[in-house]
Amino acid sequence: MKEYIRHINKDFESRARLGIMSVLLVADSADFGFLKEALQLTDGNLASHLRALEDAGYLQVLKQFIGRKPNTRYQVTVQGTAAFRNHMDALERLILTNKHQ
Amino acid sequence: MKEYIRHINKDFESRARLGIMSVLLVADSADFGFLKEALQLTDGNLASHLRALEDAGYLQVLKQFIGRKPNTRYQVTVQGTAAFRNHMDALERLILTNKHQ
Repeated sequence: MKEYIRHINKDFESRARLGIMSVLLVADSADFGFLKEALQLTDGNLASHLRALEDAGYLQVLKQFIGRKPNTRYQVTVQGTAAFRNHMDALERLILTNKHQ
Repeated sequence: MKEYIRHINKDFESRARLGIMSVLLVADSADFGFLKEALQLTDGNLASHLRALEDAGYLQVLKQFIGRKPNTRYQVTVQGTAAFRNHMDALERLILTNKHQ
């Protein structure tokens, strides 16, 4: 298989997951409501993608209180940052390959 | 939803489909065996992705003979080229967004 295709990470291939990673890397951390609004996903769909990314070790969940109100935030792990960077690099090579025709 | 995320095309989001479109745009057209070898997919998996891309109007199937042997080739349509370019542009904006941190 072509090198740049092999490095495309299946954990990130859906638009929802690309969006989650992208928003979290720009925002550093975000809560469920912010992600839902930014990505226009349903609760169930967003929750299932967040769970999958957490299970892969790419996200961590931060539980805290704002005043007395519980607040759950999501943050990309070091491993997630590295994996997403590799994925972006693979996509970039794919794009370059398709520009050089 | 962020503009660059909205333009990511779900028809192209799997690695297999990115690979198919990329190989066909570079090679102009290719037969099943060539795609299978290039992308390391099973017959069933490749056939199902080709069918989906054809149904979306992004690929056309060219049936011809090489000598007496039937040969089926796949080629990207004008519509497919435009749609894939939009997808690549959206991914490029995603990449740039994540580089500017």
